[in-house]
Amino acid sequence: MKRTENLTPFIVMDILQRANEIGDCIHFEVGQPDMAPSGGVLDGMREALDDGQFPYTPAKGIMPLREKISDFYKQYYRVQVSPERVMLTVGTSGAFLIAYSILVDIGEKLAFTDPGYPCYKNYSYVLGIDPVMIPVGAETNYQMTAGMLAEHENVKAVQISSPCNPTGNLYGKENLLGLIEYCKSKDIGFISDEIYHGLVYSGVKEHTALEFSDDAIVINGFSKYFCMPGARLGWMILPEKLVRPAEVVMQNLFISAPTMSQIGCVHAFDYKFLEDYKAEYEKRRDFLYNELKSIFKIDVVPEGAFYIWADISEYSDDCYNFALELLENARIAVTPGVDFGRNNTGKYIRFAYTRNIEHMAEGIRRLKEYLKQR
Amino acid sequence: MKRTENLTPFIVMDILQRANEIGDCIHFEVGQPDMAPSGGVLDGMREALDDGQFPYTPAKGIMPLREKISDFYKQYYRVQVSPERVMLTVGTSGAFLIAYSILVDIGEKLAFTDPGYPCYKNYSYVLGIDPVMIPVGAETNYQMTAGMLAEHENVKAVQISSPCNPTGNLYGKENLLGLIEYCKSKDIGFISDEIYHGLVYSGVKEHTALEFSDDAIVINGFSKYFCMPGARLGWMILPEKLVRPAEVVMQNLFISAPTMSQIGCVHAFDYKFLEDYKAEYEKRRDFLYNELKSIFKIDVVPEGAFYIWADISEYSDDCYNFALELLENARIAVTPGVDFGRNNTGKYIRFAYTRNIEHMAEGIRRLKEYLKQR
Ligand SMILES: Cc1ncc(COP(=O)(O)O)c(C=O)c1O
Ligand SMILES: Cc1ncc(COP(=O)(O)O)c(C=O)c1O
Repeated sequence: MKRTENLTPFIVMDILQRANEIGDCIHFEVGQPDMAPSGGVLDGMREALDDGQFPYTPAKGIMPLREKISDFYKQYYRVQVSPERVMLTVGTSGAFLIAYSILVDIGEKLAFTDPGYPCYKNYSYVLGIDPVMIPVGAETNYQMTAGMLAEHENVKAVQISSPCNPTGNLYGKENLLGLIEYCKSKDIGFISDEIYHGLVYSGVKEHTALEFSDDAIVINGFSKYFCMPGARLGWMILPEKLVRPAEVVMQNLFISAPTMSQIGCVHAFDYKFLEDYKAEYEKRRDFLYNELKSIFKIDVVPEGAFYIWADISEYSDDCYNFALELLENARIAVTPGVDFGRNNTGKYIRFAYTRNIEHMAEGIRRLKEYLKQR
Repeated sequence: MKRTENLTPFIVMDILQRANEIGDCIHFEVGQPDMAPSGGVLDGMREALDDGQFPYTPAKGIMPLREKISDFYKQYYRVQVSPERVMLTVGTSGAFLIAYSILVDIGEKLAFTDPGYPCYKNYSYVLGIDPVMIPVGAETNYQMTAGMLAEHENVKAVQISSPCNPTGNLYGKENLLGLIEYCKSKDIGFISDEIYHGLVYSGVKEHTALEFSDDAIVINGFSKYFCMPGARLGWMILPEKLVRPAEVVMQNLFISAPTMSQIGCVHAFDYKFLEDYKAEYEKRRDFLYNELKSIFKIDVVPEGAFYIWADISEYSDDCYNFALELLENARIAVTPGVDFGRNNTGKYIRFAYTRNIEHMAEGIRRLKEYLKQR
């Protein structure tokens, strides 16, 4: 069957399962934070439980949280976003389904990078969209450019993510602006996945697409920076004219986002908590990047998110078997690059720095020892 | 744009919004229970909060809950379902998206009844599926039959729901079996929406499609019988050969269902609580049905769910304006029939008995008074 025959499973799940069987593994494969959210969120959820708050919410979500998100754009980016343009979704995952549904028709084209987050292509297959996978590499710091886009005809919408998963790089301001202007000139929808915003290091400040355009669809959520992957709560900022179409898709596909998560997340914008958490992740990034640089070639500086994209070609050109080898022989779990596309991904593996430095240090010790005797 | 231009919004939302503006309304429009879930669920969620349980779960969901669901099939229907065939989903809404994705390709046909739950058709439009809406009425007690299906060529899958929303009727055993056997003989996928199971009255016992076939996809969830619409948690029982394809779609479209909801719902199978709740709803059904019978023609006995489908043709043939009229003049909110399809739905309105008898009695008083002087 055509719709699902191209879908790719999460290969990392094989690794995870095997790691659990083996036991005593070092986890560089896990793409989620290891911390609980701020105390205010937990208290908010406890209150909601005591109140027995289990009804559906309106499709766009509860207003107090949509207002907090609107405030966040003001405080964090100095951008005005009316709460009317904010819609809460079931994870950012749910937001992509809605954005693609309203921007791209059956058989039409959506462009994104390879390597990139694997679900973009799989959402496309499920929705009958024709995915245009644009190969990117170190030459452009793993960014798509307007020039690359111009080589493809009839693209209806573009999906970027910054900071990127799996490469950890950030889109530069100039390139971001160039892409947005190109899309505007060609009437191409622009979707910006900003789920790793907040996790940007070395004093660099990330840019939301909304700084440059009110026509972009911006998608963010509570799974990464806000430490709540299991809450399954995301949001989207919509251009005014797309608010109603998006709401109708939301009503029908999801009814509403999880109520308890919405109530708790009203308290998630605890900027002190978020700064401390980011500082911890910056230390982890520094530690892991310094160590890995001496072992693998790293052709992209990890500026954000919590990933490092390591070129293993000195050791292997088959990342899947290399990952299995590390797992079986050194009890280190990593994600094979092929999970993220087909463009040269066989010679990369992805390290996540979602565990503390002590845990990672043991991993580095095992890695060095194993590679020495290999 | 084709994908979304046919999507229908929830018309009842207009009613709801206007009802909130007016204030002091009687709510016959709300399609969700007015009770909190059993105490065990709340305690389970409190513990999960104290533990800081916010990670993603495996795509298929946590095993303890999948085991409880497997037990439920044994205890409630005497049917064996391995937990391996159980997958937790984001509401039943999320389960339909997965079932349709794996059974019906782009441009292929899915059949269901008109009137019926409006989202079936809207999932179809979003997924590029060609919906076949089969008109049903009082002649077959609002059931689709194998004979009706046989009039359509190339149907890939059939979606039924029993007890039905909006009509509250149940599929009889013989007809259910006939439909399932017809589908088997023609290699047509069979999807059974059993979200209102448990809410079946007068001592009648409902049948799960799994009693007759292991090839059916059965969809159920925690929004109605288990009183947790806001938990956004559903489940699907899959034929063995579809477990893996469904898991891959789940991973990609949703990652996993809400974690807190999964942990809490391990305690949801509190049969004493559920019996009491059903007894209360049976009283409400009896009250409302007896009252409405003397006001409207009711051509389908409400055997289950929490809805009554009332023929208003004695008063109007425009259910939307009739609903607005009741709202503005009598402060009674009902759902216009046109929310549920195009087949003769203009002369019906849907009453939900999701509020207590006192509240409903006041509604009946207002309704009678208004209709007398109209
Ligand atoms: C780049 C990117 N976007 C989106 C998501 C989806 O996350 P969620 O659905 O939890 O918001 C992920 C998760 O790993 C991701 O890496
Ligand atoms: C017949 C029917 N199926 C499915 C649903 C979806 O419910 P949920 O996504 O909350 O499980 C509803 C909700 O009203 C319904 O009436």
